Amino acid sequence: MPLKCSVYIATSLDGFIAREDGTLDWLDAAQATVTEGEDCGYAAFRKSVDVIVMGRNTYETVLGFAALTAESDSAEDTEKWFYKDTPMVVVTSKPDALCIPPCLSGCVSASSLPPSALHSKLEGEGYTHAYIDGGRTVQGFMRAGLVETLIITLIPIILGKGIPLLKDVPETGLTLVESKSYPFGFVQNTYTCKKKESA
Amino acid sequence: MPLKCSVYIATSLDGFIAREDGTLDWLDAAQATVTEGEDCGYAAFRKSVDVIVMGRNTYETVLGFAALTAESDSAEDTEKWFYKDTPMVVVTSKPDALCIPPCLSGCVSASSLPPSALHSKLEGEGYTHAYIDGGRTVQGFMRAGLVETLIITLIPIILGKGIPLLKDVPETGLTLVESKSYPFGFVQNTYTCKKKESA
Repeated sequence: MPLKCSVYIATSLDGFIAREDGTLDWLDAAQATVTEGEDCGYAAFRKSVDVIVMGRNTYETVLGFAALTAESDSAEDTEKWFYKDTPMVVVTSKPDALCIPPCLSGCVSASSLPPSALHSKLEGEGYTHAYIDGGRTVQGFMRAGLVETLIITLIPIILGKGIPLLKDVPETGLTLVESKSYPFGFVQNTYTCKKKESA
Repeated sequence: MPLKCSVYIATSLDGFIAREDGTLDWLDAAQATVTEGEDCGYAAFRKSVDVIVMGRNTYETVLGFAALTAESDSAEDTEKWFYKDTPMVVVTSKPDALCIPPCLSGCVSASSLPPSALHSKLEGEGYTHAYIDGGRTVQGFMRAGLVETLIITLIPIILGKGIPLLKDVPETGLTLVESKSYPFGFVQNTYTCKKKESA
């Protein structure tokens, strides 16, 4: 069964996923305006996913959110992990240097494989739907033509500067599958990427 | 009466208004998919506008579309002009060098004034709603905090490279006023820019 790769991400109106230093205060402020109980389809998306591929920077950020360190080893520590027991591959050029707390060793692994090789490996292991996260990792998968679905939530802010979601991605035709706007000003667009004829 | 400034523009999903060389083939291709009779609110927007402020590059591009030159002087030439008799100010650092065909001399003028001074001038002349167009001109008006409404139509394509709509614009909070998606995959979002407290 082929492995489908999807991106679910929030960007500013000018296409940034974080400030230049990686901070997300603007996104936190926006999240605080979200109607209680509304998750913009995230839970349903997460449920459809059986593996997460995340860039090292993003991984280290979420590790920090959970206050997990190389020593975290208890069941309580495991509870803090947002992604629960979903298998996660962290993409890094130095897999041996990656901090994987003992409490996450059952689900998190590191890989320095390029996107196409990693895709083949995960497909071979029987995964069917990968959640691709992190700016450079998304760009790598986009460049390799491996992203099938893009779910982008536009936050009503212009940042002016930041880390772009899409940069030096080859020209890609898209098909709009769904567009949804929320009373708190988010607009979530779901696109499928058109495969190149030659691919 | 205060002069309101609005932007009505189409961008790729990665925020470009044109390819790096200014070409719009991708936009023309997208326009060709638009349902007959649908104008995505453009006519109503144009009707609400009593002056157009356009960057030199954009002006020269539309002059080329109309095949107008420094010699164009007939009523037929005037007919070719897309913007009819709506007054237009072309922003350029060299107003004397701007090509304004005789057939457009009644409506088109050139100005090297910076955004705030041009805004004051037009307001003083009694204009109430300006349509700001062209990448650098939009950015200049955004930087000066002069844009009140942003109507951005997202075209379902990633270009990877191009001329950005928003670049080095200071952080700006937005309020989503309306979001509309079209069966041909365009998503048009209308935002108002939040005024800075200190402005």
